[in-house]
Amino acid sequence: MRHATGIQDFGVEGLEEILTRALAWKQGKHPKHLVDTILGMVFFNPSLRTRASFEAVMARGGGSAIVLEVGNGVWKLEDRPGAVMDGDRAEHIREAAPVLSRYVDLLAVRTFAAGGGDAEDNADPVMNGFRTFATVPTLSMESAREHPCQGLADLMTARETFGSTKGLPVTLTWAPHIKPLPKAVPNSFLLTAAAAGCEVRVAHPEGFDLHDSVLEQARALAAQSGGSVSLTGDQGAAVEGSRVVYAKAWGPATSSGLGAESVKDHPDWIASPGLMAKAARDAIFMHCLPVRRNVEVADGVLDGPWSRVVDEAENRFHVQRSLVQWLLEA
Amino acid sequence: MRHATGIQDFGVEGLEEILTRALAWKQGKHPKHLVDTILGMVFFNPSLRTRASFEAVMARGGGSAIVLEVGNGVWKLEDRPGAVMDGDRAEHIREAAPVLSRYVDLLAVRTFAAGGGDAEDNADPVMNGFRTFATVPTLSMESAREHPCQGLADLMTARETFGSTKGLPVTLTWAPHIKPLPKAVPNSFLLTAAAAGCEVRVAHPEGFDLHDSVLEQARALAAQSGGSVSLTGDQGAAVEGSRVVYAKAWGPATSSGLGAESVKDHPDWIASPGLMAKAARDAIFMHCLPVRRNVEVADGVLDGPWSRVVDEAENRFHVQRSLVQWLLEA
Amino acid sequence: MRHATGIQDFGVEGLEEILTRALAWKQGKHPKHLVDTILGMVFFNPSLRTRASFEAVMARGGGSAIVLEVGNGVWKLEDRPGAVMDGDRAEHIREAAPVLSRYVDLLAVRTFAAGGGDAEDNADPVMNGFRTFATVPTLSMESAREHPCQGLADLMTARETFGSTKGLPVTLTWAPHIKPLPKAVPNSFLLTAAAAGCEVRVAHPEGFDLHDSVLEQARALAAQSGGSVSLTGDQGAAVEGSRVVYAKAWGPATSSGLGAESVKDHPDWIASPGLMAKAARDAIFMHCLPVRRNVEVADGVLDGPWSRVVDEAENRFHVQRSLVQWLLEA
Repeated sequence: MRHATGIQDFGVEGLEEILTRALAWKQGKHPKHLVDTILGMVFFNPSLRTRASFEAVMARGGGSAIVLEVGNGVWKLEDRPGAVMDGDRAEHIREAAPVLSRYVDLLAVRTFAAGGGDAEDNADPVMNGFRTFATVPTLSMESAREHPCQGLADLMTARETFGSTKGLPVTLTWAPHIKPLPKAVPNSFLLTAAAAGCEVRVAHPEGFDLHDSVLEQARALAAQSGGSVSLTGDQGAAVEGSRVVYAKAWGPATSSGLGAESVKDHPDWIASPGLMAKAARDAIFMHCLPVRRNVEVADGVLDGPWSRVVDEAENRFHVQRSLVQWLLEA
Repeated sequence: MRHATGIQDFGVEGLEEILTRALAWKQGKHPKHLVDTILGMVFFNPSLRTRASFEAVMARGGGSAIVLEVGNGVWKLEDRPGAVMDGDRAEHIREAAPVLSRYVDLLAVRTFAAGGGDAEDNADPVMNGFRTFATVPTLSMESAREHPCQGLADLMTARETFGSTKGLPVTLTWAPHIKPLPKAVPNSFLLTAAAAGCEVRVAHPEGFDLHDSVLEQARALAAQSGGSVSLTGDQGAAVEGSRVVYAKAWGPATSSGLGAESVKDHPDWIASPGLMAKAARDAIFMHCLPVRRNVEVADGVLDGPWSRVVDEAENRFHVQRSLVQWLLEA
Repeated sequence: MRHATGIQDFGVEGLEEILTRALAWKQGKHPKHLVDTILGMVFFNPSLRTRASFEAVMARGGGSAIVLEVGNGVWKLEDRPGAVMDGDRAEHIREAAPVLSRYVDLLAVRTFAAGGGDAEDNADPVMNGFRTFATVPTLSMESAREHPCQGLADLMTARETFGSTKGLPVTLTWAPHIKPLPKAVPNSFLLTAAAAGCEVRVAHPEGFDLHDSVLEQARALAAQSGGSVSLTGDQGAAVEGSRVVYAKAWGPATSSGLGAESVKDHPDWIASPGLMAKAARDAIFMHCLPVRRNVEVADGVLDGPWSRVVDEAENRFHVQRSLVQWLLEA
């Protein structure tokens, strides 16, 4: 039985298969590949884009989705073995995951960082608990550590623009925001671009390092795919000659490190037309959305010739139905 | 591409087409006219009746609905061009509307008055933003200014009772409530009745005028359809000989004018059996629901021979599937 | 027209019919018995298991579900005849139930105890209001008094394990919890087991009596089915030789009686491997879930050879589709 809670589940080879089918299916009629198939979607954190795109995947494919929005803290799951459950966690994942597995054919889970620090986020206990105790294929709709569907949509967008992503120079650049954000999206762009063979450049101010385990995994994937990963604190140098500029706000390296306000301390890191002018002449701009205009990214970029942000969001649909197919056909 | 965010989108001619088909389809088997069609429903304000009736439209027609309940303020959209988005509005309608358009075949939006006053409500920025930036047909499930589906259901109910609405004397009367309510429903009853050729009488206490732009539009529609619009502060005189009595609570003319409590200052405006006795002998009573019994409308009216409120609610289903058909066949 | 808001609606004979079909359908392919059928689900209280299992019933059967989550107090319904509705109850059940009935083919309602005491809970005004004013078959997804679908799933689990439930010794034992819980689940286990002909033993500490009307009804059902009902304050004696041990936390007999904290006063009532050792050698353990591990039930029971809790949850799906069939075929 396959799962897809992180890129390690499909790797370089699965990525190729999923993107190839997604691109092919985008050109044709909707295949009815999900008749009599139910996807159970469990949201510990709210979602609109992810929810709408997965519901569309199931409806277009002839299947259906059951959406369980458990909200922040409304339904807290216990994941620790042997716990005496006398606190606010009313159900153990040892019951929740197998029970839901009896009603549906696949489980999709969204759960964000719990605020326990970077090490705990990286261990991703809720997502890994579902993976362990579910008896149907389980996929991530974003967790504390990764957002694999977003990474797939990002690379599909690069692939449909440039044909190939082998050796493609791409920059993941940190962007300012009004508050610290989780690292799942930048992690997944980095990992997926590395697995797709890109020359990945990561630019961020001091103190905003991605987690070591993610960087190591990205380098290992790049080694397999013929790509590379480099880090810099110089945004302009990173973008120089890049054919993809990917901007994203994320929080400081450690929760005990830089404070919440520090994300506003680098307003010059905004993605601007001036920055895009340094990129390759055919460069495209991507962002996972939602985006705070004129804080993270200037209007001139989003409304300019570079922007692929709406296509990128559409591609969530295409990669997700290909991923669901990959999960089911094992 | 057609939209239906207000009566101006279909006008006198479209109204006739939509009602005629709704009445015909009510008599027969459910047509499977929505196979492979997805309706995206975006609720900025909660709904039960509207949501249930639209989901039923899609299910009965063979299609499906995706419901996005964004709640009050949970997901605030920016609509101003050039805004620096450093406040509580986390996404611009320039991204939200085109992205959702990539997942669905039609978009339906509900958004209430924002409390910025009658002029702002009348400009209806969120609904008009979706209309502008969506790339699929967009329809209103009630906005600050209009509730076109309710108006259609109201006139369908009059039409199925009396055969024709040409020259039909109908009264829209203000009713008391425990708090001020939006004007979208009375606006839409007035506009749709005028477009259907009714002799529309509007009765309300001083200070509860509907917006000038709505009254002007109603008069223009009446001029086209052969109907008429008159205003009065005398409820009994208005109802005299009316064949439809439509009661609805709404708030004062301007938010800076009369206070919240003033809606309770006219308890004698309750719709009562005594009032109904002044109407025509075959008069029917309508209300959009929910209704506060014995505050807005007396039990004797709702449980009496005049009431068509449940049929009127059922007709939401019938006019909505006809409206969806109208949107898709353009 | 049939309803199923409590066991009185189907009784000993209907129980047999519903369980027999549920067991048969569990062995075969999903029947497409619900094509063009819409279930409206109204949740006054949140749910995950019930919601997911009913949505799966409708999707597997070829129909669809409309989920209306009205939350706690968001949409309070008035049920009193003649009420002047100037408080927080914005709609009367006399409108809500018939209107929803126009959109769907069946209505399912979940509403918990309102905190007005055991007598009010037992009268179950919201569930009975829907039953009275709906014009389509209405079923309970748990109310203040009963949770008939849970009772059906429980007895299906006993039936599939032991073949027959005639004369089967089963114990319903109270369990400790961090707060008082409603009695609908223990009530329904008791009533359904009695109707299935079991020798039902109920064990609880002093002050936690079930309602007299429920006990009387259980004894009447036992008299019809050849079963029996006995009460004891000695948990070990009850479990002695039982082939089913059913643990469940519930609150004190009267809200004005024992306080909230008292449910923690009997930690020794936890369902433990030691307790299970007193049961019959082939005994099974059941709980409706969610369960607080090591408060209500020890890990050793839930992870041991006795536990059927996940099968029991799966059986919610099977009994519910059989119950829906029973409602529709009348």
